Amino acid sequence: MEREQYLAAIKPRMPEKRYIHTIGVMETAISLAERFDEDAKKAETAAILHDIAKYADIDWMEQIVRDENLDQRLLGWGSELLHGPVGAYIAESEFGITDADVLNAIRFHTTGRVGMSKLEKILFVADMIEPNRKFDGVDRLRKKAQKDLDKAVGACVRHTLSFLIDTKQAIYPVSIECYNDMMKREESEG
Amino acid sequence: MEREQYLAAIKPRMPEKRYIHTIGVMETAISLAERFDEDAKKAETAAILHDIAKYADIDWMEQIVRDENLDQRLLGWGSELLHGPVGAYIAESEFGITDADVLNAIRFHTTGRVGMSKLEKILFVADMIEPNRKFDGVDRLRKKAQKDLDKAVGACVRHTLSFLIDTKQAIYPVSIECYNDMMKREESEG
Repeated sequence: MEREQYLAAIKPRMPEKRYIHTIGVMETAISLAERFDEDAKKAETAAILHDIAKYADIDWMEQIVRDENLDQRLLGWGSELLHGPVGAYIAESEFGITDADVLNAIRFHTTGRVGMSKLEKILFVADMIEPNRKFDGVDRLRKKAQKDLDKAVGACVRHTLSFLIDTKQAIYPVSIECYNDMMKREESEG
Repeated sequence: MEREQYLAAIKPRMPEKRYIHTIGVMETAISLAERFDEDAKKAETAAILHDIAKYADIDWMEQIVRDENLDQRLLGWGSELLHGPVGAYIAESEFGITDADVLNAIRFHTTGRVGMSKLEKILFVADMIEPNRKFDGVDRLRKKAQKDLDKAVGACVRHTLSFLIDTKQAIYPVSIECYNDMMKREESEG
């Protein structure tokens, strides 16, 4: 499928604001892919589809987690944690995506994970720094992403965790595994 | 054993500064126990022994973790994470402590855990707010501990996690389980 077909397919599934965010993620992901030698078409596809499940019914998503034997720790964590893995399920079952890297980028775009691929890192970072994002520190993250993808992932994870702690929100264990992994890499690089 | 005997036993095992910290934790833990209806003698014993393994040899501590079949996730996490569980081991094997609550308070004083007892909470908080502690926000934690033990635990966990993230240090998964547990309680209390 081509870009315009994907975009036409996702548009009716989300509010205008989320669609505009998705376009921003797509453009940022393509730009990061070009900068860091990744397949820009894969980055584009993963970015367009990354939030396809964001507004799906939560009971339906939990049913998918059970029926498809996805990570059962997801149950009870709500839409914010479900929409990545269920988005990957939709990308595969409905859009016929078979590329494991594209599916993983969608699957882990919210939590990150240990041992992320380059494409996964690109979508993870693009989701946080796309031009419509406005929060304290976003420009610092954008600058980091110009230079070093790993450090940008680490900074994005740290930003997200700090935000969750400041606002007293629960933290999904996989995000901590990802954080520990990224900090270990930074340390070993000195 | 009486207070003076315990104190005499721990003094040679730590630098003066840590001994002074321990006295501070002891006094704070006794005061919290009196305020929140806990056994002050248990609080005293747990507090005096809480850092007994802080300066133990790390290879020896890792051997204890293996030999005594303690939580194997501790291996590789260094002295900061080992000294609680190994301290509980010393308290039992060397000082003959049999009270499970005292041992758990020592065991989990660094990380916290899901479903902490009142005594565990008291030591966890006392360790952070004792009078010799000096860091931004410690007075706010002291005030919280005057009023609400659970909220003080939550605030202490949040402070520790924020510090670890700010300084790019790894986070032990049990601390996140504890954090999530405390945030869930605060939420359900409204």
